[in-house]
Order: sequence, then structure tokens, then C-alpha cells
Amino acid sequence: MPTLAQLETPALLLDPIRMDRNVARMQERIRRHGVSLRPHVKTNKSIDVTRRMLEQSLGPVTVSTLREADYFAAHGITDILYAVGITPNKLPHVLALRSKGVRLSIILDSCDAARAVTCVVEGRESARATLDVMLEIDCDGHRSGLTPDSAELLAVAEALRSPQVNLVGVMTHAGSSYNCRSVGAIRAVAEQERAGAVHAADRLRAAGHPCPAVSVGSTPTATFADDLTGVTEVRAGVYVFFDLVMAGLSVCAVDDVALSVLTAVIGHQRDKGWTIVDAGWMAMSRDRGTSSQQVDQGYGLVCDVDGCVLADYTVSSANQEHGIISHRTGDPSRMLDVPVGTLLRILPNHACATAAQHSVYHVLGDAGIVECVWERFNGW
Amino acid sequence: MPTLAQLETPALLLDPIRMDRNVARMQERIRRHGVSLRPHVKTNKSIDVTRRMLEQSLGPVTVSTLREADYFAAHGITDILYAVGITPNKLPHVLALRSKGVRLSIILDSCDAARAVTCVVEGRESARATLDVMLEIDCDGHRSGLTPDSAELLAVAEALRSPQVNLVGVMTHAGSSYNCRSVGAIRAVAEQERAGAVHAADRLRAAGHPCPAVSVGSTPTATFADDLTGVTEVRAGVYVFFDLVMAGLSVCAVDDVALSVLTAVIGHQRDKGWTIVDAGWMAMSRDRGTSSQQVDQGYGLVCDVDGCVLADYTVSSANQEHGIISHRTGDPSRMLDVPVGTLLRILPNHACATAAQHSVYHVLGDAGIVECVWERFNGW
Repeated sequence: MPTLAQLETPALLLDPIRMDRNVARMQERIRRHGVSLRPHVKTNKSIDVTRRMLEQSLGPVTVSTLREADYFAAHGITDILYAVGITPNKLPHVLALRSKGVRLSIILDSCDAARAVTCVVEGRESARATLDVMLEIDCDGHRSGLTPDSAELLAVAEALRSPQVNLVGVMTHAGSSYNCRSVGAIRAVAEQERAGAVHAADRLRAAGHPCPAVSVGSTPTATFADDLTGVTEVRAGVYVFFDLVMAGLSVCAVDDVALSVLTAVIGHQRDKGWTIVDAGWMAMSRDRGTSSQQVDQGYGLVCDVDGCVLADYTVSSANQEHGIISHRTGDPSRMLDVPVGTLLRILPNHACATAAQHSVYHVLGDAGIVECVWERFNGW
Repeated sequence: MPTLAQLETPALLLDPIRMDRNVARMQERIRRHGVSLRPHVKTNKSIDVTRRMLEQSLGPVTVSTLREADYFAAHGITDILYAVGITPNKLPHVLALRSKGVRLSIILDSCDAARAVTCVVEGRESARATLDVMLEIDCDGHRSGLTPDSAELLAVAEALRSPQVNLVGVMTHAGSSYNCRSVGAIRAVAEQERAGAVHAADRLRAAGHPCPAVSVGSTPTATFADDLTGVTEVRAGVYVFFDLVMAGLSVCAVDDVALSVLTAVIGHQRDKGWTIVDAGWMAMSRDRGTSSQQVDQGYGLVCDVDGCVLADYTVSSANQEHGIISHRTGDPSRMLDVPVGTLLRILPNHACATAAQHSVYHVLGDAGIVECVWERFNGW
């Protein structure tokens, strides 16, 4: 297997020891609550990574695209939640997967969508065509979903009454946890997430709907939730790799971040204090998630080739295939003065976005060896 | 072939009529200056698109990665400039391509890199191993390159003196043109780009280096340059598709933008004035290039399914697979009130970044038919 010096840069590196530690910690945390964990695999899009996250080979997993559903189903995972609001143009695809024995659930949050879904499945020739549907609940106002107290919640459940539609539960995602400024604030959002989902489920049950599943989650709330009473499963994904946004939220330490981008120095502009590398936004993504946090990490935090953090250096600016590394102070006299060809590693702001720029993970072994290469995919 | 209604969303659409018009206009402009055009193919990464940009099948083209060089060489293009500063770890790859008959040129901007390159090529067993090298010139302080007046310029040229190294010229890229606020400012940057490159070439020639090629370019400066005296070739890439950043610079009209992302409405949050679609940052990229322009287009400008611009609506916020469309004023009473399942098209801020999120172009034919599908690639 190649050494890091033999790789062409830029290249995505994965530290499997950190990854396994991150996975074990989350599993232990969720197990203590006595609920199940349904990993979100949109971050990794790789069967090799996903297998490390699963305690059982059939799942469960959460996906963000039907391409993920296809891929993971083809690898034997049969319990899949597609956690983006369904549109009618995707129902034939959903039904095709279900007809192959994949227990694929969809989500929706409007009477419009509920009627469209019911109409399509009832229009199928085979009465065996069925759909498992979860109602998306808005617990924090950050994106989609029905508010737990709304009249529409019950109306949507009614619109789904059909022998071919199973209302399997409610799900919510406290995306606002990403904008918290303290662990206390994340704990509060976690409780709001739990309470909103449980309240919605209670109302549905009181109206005569079974609603067995109550699904919540985001990596921050899954990490800091004190109480998950009434919840049946937790969804989270980015914890497998972690990233600088999560470190900025105190959800992990910088040393937990399992992904980095290997890059080589291509030049300098000494009067400006710039060290220019071949990891630009194409390799790092344009994600600037730390820009609104206490510590802005630019387009990523710089490490030496062994992964030791050079805490004063970030990728301060990026073009397509160029990254500019400078000292946090901008002081040219403190530039990172290493020769052309020097290898560095950059920790990403957002693991989902950076991984999406690459087609493989180079999995690190001992002493700077790439132990194996794991494929990943993108697209829809 | 499928209609747009038969595509699963999100999907990248390409309008070939706009593309061909954009290409013809740039070719005509550069032809008038009597210089040659070396299209940058990093934007499109597709032989089908690149063939429409080339007047001769062998090239020339500009690339930003060696993977692009491999791919376009495999499709018969033999005149290639790799326009990102070379690092020693990429030289074996460069030499392998050259040994197959590809006229691949590299660039560098330091004595460090010049010595490394010379050392590697002279260390090859075959004296037939040669390298074509261009010196990168910094015409505007925005990124890499040697300043035209610097002593180091001549020192780097000296460090390249070797029977196995051909100093084929100088190249520069006025990246600062992307930050201009007026056409007048772009014209001034174009002249600065020309003058810097020509001055560097003159100094090299006076010192006894042949330096036949003087290569300049960016889409804005290529569009507005008044005078290209002393220049031998122009490089530009994004003009093939154009995008909202270019429209914001007056380099094109919004109606010239040839790329869009087809998306479907998945829900609403009426109290906030949000229409939620299935094109998030995974489909649009995280590029916010218009955020510093006069008109901030969010994550993209909304059109109806036929491509007619809905000028008051942008994707104001994006998660991985969710885009939130709102009225520019944010006024909920003016929300885009269209049903779940409605198809829309989103024009991108930055064509390079948005195209990179997709693996195919769906090429539009008449009446909402997808005429064909062109593949594209990513990675290194």
C-alpha cells in the first residue's frame, strides 16, 4: 500500500481509530437511554463506513437521497428511512424499492403531499403496494415539518387513512442545535426536540392513529440529550467523522475529527504571509460553517502530515484548486514557512460537505501507510 | 427521451443553445484580437462540452487537475496546460502523460519548484524525458505567481536552464477581475493582466530566454480587454455556461446562463414565507459568490420549469438536500405559493461549483425534453 508521500494530492484521508471511537461513544450514549440508533449515512455514503456504524447488518439507517437507498439496499440493508420530504416524482422509485423487500419509509408534512402519496399508491394495480409514512414534525422552526400543536397535524394523518398507507410514526430533526452557543443551549434544544415529537405522537394516538415510532435526532442533541422519554429512536450521522463545526459546538474535540485532506505546498507569497497549497474549495468544499462560530477556521484547520494540529494556521482563502494558508493574525512574519512539496493535512469545517467532494476515502494505517481505499458515491 | 417531469429531482440541466451562443461570442471576441483561445475545461469536465468549445480537435485546453489532463488526453486532446503550480509528487504523472505524446505544460513560480522539477527530469534515465514549463506571473496580487518586476523571475528562469526543460513562456490569471464593481474596473484589470505578462516576457527575453508564449485570462478580462498587444493566447472557462456571479459583473446577462438545477417543491412554511425544495447545497454547492455583489442571489435565482426567471425569488438558505425559497423582501405574504411537486429551476451562483456537484448534464431539447445526457467527472 502507498505511503502518504506516494499519494497524489489532494486526497481525502480517514483515520479509522478515531472513527471507531466516535461510533462506539455514540452507540454507548444511545444505549444508555434504552432507545435505538438509526445512523444517518448521508455523511459517509460508503458501505464500508456504514458497516462500522451498524450493530446489525440489516440496518436501520437514515438516508437523504434515493440513490443512497438504492446503494445501501443493494448492500443488504433493508430498514431505511428516507428523511427528506417526498415528492410525487419520486414515488415510483420508492415503490420499486419496496417491491424488492426494502422496508423504506418516507416522510411528509402537508395534506398536499399526503393526498398525492395516497392517490399514487391506491392507483397501483397491486393492492399489495403499500407505503410506510412518517410525519415530519417541526420542533424548532428551522426548516420543514408540522408544528406539534397544529390542527394540520391531525388533518395530514387523516389524509393518509388508506389500507395501503401505514402511518408508522413521527420524526423530527433539531437543526437549530447547529447554531447553539453553549452545551446548555444544546441540552435545551434536545429537550425541545424530544418534547415536540412526543407531544405530536401523543396527539396522533389520542386521535386514533397508532404512531408507534418517535424518531428524533441530530449529532449535537444526540450527544447532550439528558432524557429521551417517549422517544423510540435517535438519528445522527456526522458523529462518525466529526468536524470543526462540531468541535466548535463542544460536541467533540478537534482530536476526534477523523477526516482530513492531504495537500501539498505549491508556493508562497511571502510579503502577504501566504503558503499556497493544492487543496482549494474543490477539495475542501465551500462550506464556511465555522464562520459564525467563536473560532472561525476559514476553509479548514492546518495539521502537519502526521495529523498534529498547527493551531495558528487555517486555510484563510480558497479558489477551485488553490488554498491559501495564513497565520490567524495575518502577520506575514509568522507565515507557515515550509518548502514547496511539503505535505500537510487540513481538517474540514463540515464532514458531509468535504467528503462529498471526493470519491474515495484513503484509510490510514500505521506509520503513514494507506491501509486500504474505500469508495463513496454522490448524486441522486 | 424523458421529459423534465420524468426526471428525478434534483438534476443538472444544460441549455445547449445558450452554451453554443456563449462559446461563439467568446471565440469571435478573441479572434478579433488575433490571438488564440485556450479554453479552461475545469468548469465543464466533459468531452461533450469541451468539443463545443474547440475549433480544433487536438486542443488547446487548460486544465486544473491531472485527472482532467488524463481524461482529455484519452479523448484525443494533446495540447494541454496544467495551470496549477506543480508539486514534485505530481511529476511522475506529468512525465507519464508526456511520454504518451501529450504536449502537457506545467507552471511554477519559485526557484524551489524550478530546482525540484529540473532535478526530477534530469534524474530520468531517458534523456528524451523533457518538460515544458511556463512561469506563473502575479499581475494583481490575488494569488500565486512571480511579480513581473521581481529579481526572482530571472532567477527562476535560470534555475530551469537544462537541456531537458523548455521554458515555453509566461502565464497569468487576473483573478481579481471577479471582485470588480464595474466594467471600467474590469477593463483596467485586463490591461494590468496584459501589461504584467508582457513585461515579464520582455524581461525574460532580454535575459536570453526565448519565452514564445504569453498567456493571460479570466472570463471577465477576456470579455472586456481592449488591447491584447504582446499576448499570444487567452484562457477562460466559465463563459461556456456563465452564472450569476458573471451576470453580477455584467460579463453576461442572466439569460445567458446555460446551467440550472431542476428541483421539486417538497413543502412550505407559510408563516415564514418559505417554499422548500429538494435542491440544497448538495445540488447547488455552498458557493455564495454573489453575497459580496450588489445583488445577493442567495444559493441561486429561481425560475419556473421553462426557465423564465422569477426575479423576486432566491434560494435564501440551504441544507444538504433542502433549499428554502423566499421572496427577496422576506415578506411571507409574497411567498412563492406553488403546490408540492411543482418543478422549478435554479440558476447557480458559480457554474464551476454547481456543476461539480453533479455527474451528468441533462441536455435540453425542444419543449421540455431531455435530448441527451452528457457525463462529467470530478476528483484528482
